[in-house]
Amino acid sequence: MIIVMKNQATEKQIEDVIRWIESVGYKAHPSRGVERTIIGAVGDSREKGILKYAESLPGVEKTMSILKPYKLASRESHEGDTIVDVSSVRIGGPEFVVMAGPCSIESEEQLMESAYIVKKGGAHILRGGAYKPRTSPYSFQGMEEEGLKLLEQVRERSSMPVVTEVINPADVDLVESYADMLQIGARNVQNFALLKKVGQSRKPVLLKRGMMTTIEELLMSAEYILSSGNPNVVLCERGIRTFETATRNTLDISAVPVLKSLTHLPVVIDPSHAAGHWRLVIPLSRAAMAVGADGLIVEVHPQPELAVSDGMQSLKPEKFYQLMDELRMLAAVIKR
Amino acid sequence: MIIVMKNQATEKQIEDVIRWIESVGYKAHPSRGVERTIIGAVGDSREKGILKYAESLPGVEKTMSILKPYKLASRESHEGDTIVDVSSVRIGGPEFVVMAGPCSIESEEQLMESAYIVKKGGAHILRGGAYKPRTSPYSFQGMEEEGLKLLEQVRERSSMPVVTEVINPADVDLVESYADMLQIGARNVQNFALLKKVGQSRKPVLLKRGMMTTIEELLMSAEYILSSGNPNVVLCERGIRTFETATRNTLDISAVPVLKSLTHLPVVIDPSHAAGHWRLVIPLSRAAMAVGADGLIVEVHPQPELAVSDGMQSLKPEKFYQLMDELRMLAAVIKR
Amino acid sequence: MIIVMKNQATEKQIEDVIRWIESVGYKAHPSRGVERTIIGAVGDSREKGILKYAESLPGVEKTMSILKPYKLASRESHEGDTIVDVSSVRIGGPEFVVMAGPCSIESEEQLMESAYIVKKGGAHILRGGAYKPRTSPYSFQGMEEEGLKLLEQVRERSSMPVVTEVINPADVDLVESYADMLQIGARNVQNFALLKKVGQSRKPVLLKRGMMTTIEELLMSAEYILSSGNPNVVLCERGIRTFETATRNTLDISAVPVLKSLTHLPVVIDPSHAAGHWRLVIPLSRAAMAVGADGLIVEVHPQPELAVSDGMQSLKPEKFYQLMDELRMLAAVIKR
Amino acid sequence: MIIVMKNQATEKQIEDVIRWIESVGYKAHPSRGVERTIIGAVGDSREKGILKYAESLPGVEKTMSILKPYKLASRESHEGDTIVDVSSVRIGGPEFVVMAGPCSIESEEQLMESAYIVKKGGAHILRGGAYKPRTSPYSFQGMEEEGLKLLEQVRERSSMPVVTEVINPADVDLVESYADMLQIGARNVQNFALLKKVGQSRKPVLLKRGMMTTIEELLMSAEYILSSGNPNVVLCERGIRTFETATRNTLDISAVPVLKSLTHLPVVIDPSHAAGHWRLVIPLSRAAMAVGADGLIVEVHPQPELAVSDGMQSLKPEKFYQLMDELRMLAAVIKR
Repeated sequence: MIIVMKNQATEKQIEDVIRWIESVGYKAHPSRGVERTIIGAVGDSREKGILKYAESLPGVEKTMSILKPYKLASRESHEGDTIVDVSSVRIGGPEFVVMAGPCSIESEEQLMESAYIVKKGGAHILRGGAYKPRTSPYSFQGMEEEGLKLLEQVRERSSMPVVTEVINPADVDLVESYADMLQIGARNVQNFALLKKVGQSRKPVLLKRGMMTTIEELLMSAEYILSSGNPNVVLCERGIRTFETATRNTLDISAVPVLKSLTHLPVVIDPSHAAGHWRLVIPLSRAAMAVGADGLIVEVHPQPELAVSDGMQSLKPEKFYQLMDELRMLAAVIKR
Repeated sequence: MIIVMKNQATEKQIEDVIRWIESVGYKAHPSRGVERTIIGAVGDSREKGILKYAESLPGVEKTMSILKPYKLASRESHEGDTIVDVSSVRIGGPEFVVMAGPCSIESEEQLMESAYIVKKGGAHILRGGAYKPRTSPYSFQGMEEEGLKLLEQVRERSSMPVVTEVINPADVDLVESYADMLQIGARNVQNFALLKKVGQSRKPVLLKRGMMTTIEELLMSAEYILSSGNPNVVLCERGIRTFETATRNTLDISAVPVLKSLTHLPVVIDPSHAAGHWRLVIPLSRAAMAVGADGLIVEVHPQPELAVSDGMQSLKPEKFYQLMDELRMLAAVIKR
Repeated sequence: MIIVMKNQATEKQIEDVIRWIESVGYKAHPSRGVERTIIGAVGDSREKGILKYAESLPGVEKTMSILKPYKLASRESHEGDTIVDVSSVRIGGPEFVVMAGPCSIESEEQLMESAYIVKKGGAHILRGGAYKPRTSPYSFQGMEEEGLKLLEQVRERSSMPVVTEVINPADVDLVESYADMLQIGARNVQNFALLKKVGQSRKPVLLKRGMMTTIEELLMSAEYILSSGNPNVVLCERGIRTFETATRNTLDISAVPVLKSLTHLPVVIDPSHAAGHWRLVIPLSRAAMAVGADGLIVEVHPQPELAVSDGMQSLKPEKFYQLMDELRMLAAVIKR
Repeated sequence: MIIVMKNQATEKQIEDVIRWIESVGYKAHPSRGVERTIIGAVGDSREKGILKYAESLPGVEKTMSILKPYKLASRESHEGDTIVDVSSVRIGGPEFVVMAGPCSIESEEQLMESAYIVKKGGAHILRGGAYKPRTSPYSFQGMEEEGLKLLEQVRERSSMPVVTEVINPADVDLVESYADMLQIGARNVQNFALLKKVGQSRKPVLLKRGMMTTIEELLMSAEYILSSGNPNVVLCERGIRTFETATRNTLDISAVPVLKSLTHLPVVIDPSHAAGHWRLVIPLSRAAMAVGADGLIVEVHPQPELAVSDGMQSLKPEKFYQLMDELRMLAAVIKR
């Protein structure tokens, strides 16, 4: 960390800062410039919280971090790309992976039909929620374990791996006994108890960025999972919250190349939640492939007009087939 | 809900929308204007998710909600102000209530000394965290149950009620056996499993607004607690995330009068997390009282330069005494 | 506009609102529902400012607009796509149009060299700024009229149309005598005096979205130009300001399909200002074409390491050639 | 500026960066740490644009600015508080200054009545707009010069100084011949042609923060005026744009103490535009005084229900008197 002194800082203030840096266990490297003295604090930066306090000391103008706060998630620690294996579907490799299915699991018929559609279209993984985090306590909260059982049945009959959300640390063991991949939703991206728990799982984790999570914070949340022992994390950009209300969220498509430069983990895009409207899903999916994402997670429903949740952003079967056709054409000219 | 048709919508499209509204269990009230036909959908709005789908129907321009999605939290359901009793400290009544103490519980000495300081200054409730949600897995995660035990000791010796955070539904029973008030932190404001669990507690809940949470979503999170059976919720504005980086977050001070008009629940302000720097805490606390908040939660530490967390935003004892003096002077001229 | 009454609104309050609506020149259409009375105010909505006041009347909960505030810019007023002709380059038609060149005009050599590069790469229009709106008064402010003269020379020698920014209404006549297209920069998107002035020009206008401008406001700014008599407006998405700081701005790529559904005007993307770093320009440009934009405006400099402005986000010649190659490959599979 | 190298940066890359820094006219001071080499670039930082390019060089991780980009606006250049004299009303001194009046000048009667009301209430300066920057071209654009003439008449009959907005550089000479203070509106905060022009005026300037302007950018805009020769600038916080839609904008009340620490210029608050609703104006005004602002600018209208603009956020006379009474009570206990 670098500590920048005010230009009117006295010699005594500079010395006091140096003494304080050393008192909390770091080495101080002052450098006296024409307009400012700056002081480097060298040492194990894990407890940066303490060094940040320097901003409260007399004569200090500001502090600036040199090191990134994440380690295991960084390209520095692992230069090649990580490929996450989800029951033989490989995310992060040469193939663009599509996860698709309904927002909520509603019934055996609905789920089976969805699986049939997404498999026919060419999707690799079936998605479907049994535990639903809903803004309103009066909205459908998911079929819970009953939904997981349906998921398992359909998984076997369709031979597709399944990804499903878990929202309570207490349910992780149960959910991982049914699912091929555990999803952490946007609202739980900083639910650290849950992150630690899925970090102990052996199933891969799909970690969604929160709607107000910075890219650095997303990587810190991945770091929770990695440092708890689970190396199989796939990051998902799904739109951030901005002042613009024409879309449900604002898809931060630049996050894909930025993440690719910072981390070795695969990055996928969820155009359905970003846009909030099915009409935008196809163009945003094309953009996702063009920008270099490793895959998509997209909502598909046999009859969106009857869906208990997210009908407006779910693709009908024919639209999903059209999406997959367009992606296949694009894939031919996009170097991965 | 109101459904606005496009001005080129055909008669058949209008009829199809009406038929769909009725097929999902609502009554349709069309009204044909000069430029637009609008259709009211009347019925139990709890499953608005389905009506929202109308935006996908041909000829529809947009949908607009008429009703607020929360009920128990609204002024309509409960016109007078709710007063929340925290072991005889009454929040939401004539007195401006101050909760103060360290970010993290670090040791018996630190906590006891903090309690002594905040009580001497005139605070009503002691705050202190045993479970700490930290962005980094490498930061101090709290003393956990050992911290709770210290809290209980200090609570008895100081005769002050205590508020402390709970971050895992599995810990709620344990934490409520030690604390007078349960705090839900900003990152857990939409951790619905946790909200449902504290909704079953008989201890009052301090619910912090998330940095990405709208006022309406905050009230929906309160609704989770209220509808689970716990009527004692205090809302806390603690800064939202914006583009401005000069402060840690942007204190949304207008949220206080807005919330006061929408809900009967008490509203307090946390200037420490909003600002991220102790120098701003005193002016923001004065503003909090002036704008009409019911109280404050503020970080105080005997030696902020040694705090394991949030030292930069913690008040030293003498600054806390100054704050309390200024608040007493203000209280004399602010009508509550 | 629709006026929603509170559910406790009295009959007298409802009548007072109706009377007020009529007193300001609108017709009132009340509709009494089970939970709420809503009142439609019908009439010329141009002076909506007045109707909005209804929110101040006793018993009123909120007002909601039915009509979009823009007319000439809307698809309703002009169903087909507008094609803007810039000295024979047609924006909005089947061809994906690339505008490229340096941020600032620095010298004849620099501009001539830039023109050579971008023409060789296949760009259609040369960009270059003679008037530079800079955050700091100490930064280079542009070569002004001298720059315009260089632009004219290079325009003739390269046979490429040129687009350049104008920042003061007093300069519009001068700038349009040199340029093929006038650019309104992001910071001037609501400089209404300037919009009215370019609305009187016969040159086409490239209107950049401000970093704080909603899609609706952008269309209202276009409406200023259109309603002043100039029908040739190209909209440009160039990133909005959000909480994320990993990129200079956040490219709102969804704005392209959203704008395409709302307006007949062409939409291009500026990946250079959105990202702020040349490394992101190629992937974002691919995404721009994939999402359905009508073109790009991109910064290219013969020697970015010596550029007086925006060097970090400018492409070197070989990177620009690579970009154009990739776009040509993509164009083959993207249906326009 | 500090340049942080990647930890895998080679010796040659470090040397290349040093050579480049020197080639663009700065001195390089490398400092080799355990995990990172950092290189200070020392010299006249006005052309930081060039140094920022270092982020494009191989082996560089990021650059960080040490110096603030503004000079004349900073506390460093001028330690005491600047007091701005507006025809004998002193802003920034011991008195809390209230500017009040209608949004738009509508007629002689309306303006005279407004002046009578605000003077009776105890306001110091009359506000009123003759040139109105409106989002819609179809909204009332102001009475222009006719309005200025009314302003002058009322100014003389009421003996109150007047502040009014100017939106076109070409009108500055005219407006300053009528007004005591020139207002730059939020949408023009980065209209640099206008800032330079009012910088040449001898009338004081009220500079409003834009809805997406950072505090640093606001100070850079003030720097434009100061460096053009006009030292009399009053800053105005009027709400920023965030994701929250319950208020028109989000009043960034923390900006007051932050600005007070960074600059010597006076800071006032505009609660009317921040909130967008008159019901919030009184509590936010109290908060403005409590947080340490130097004054207020507030919209007052004799009959808000008939105002051509901003009626919803304008105070009626009796509410304005109540506001001034509350402020007088608060002033007695707030140390300035």
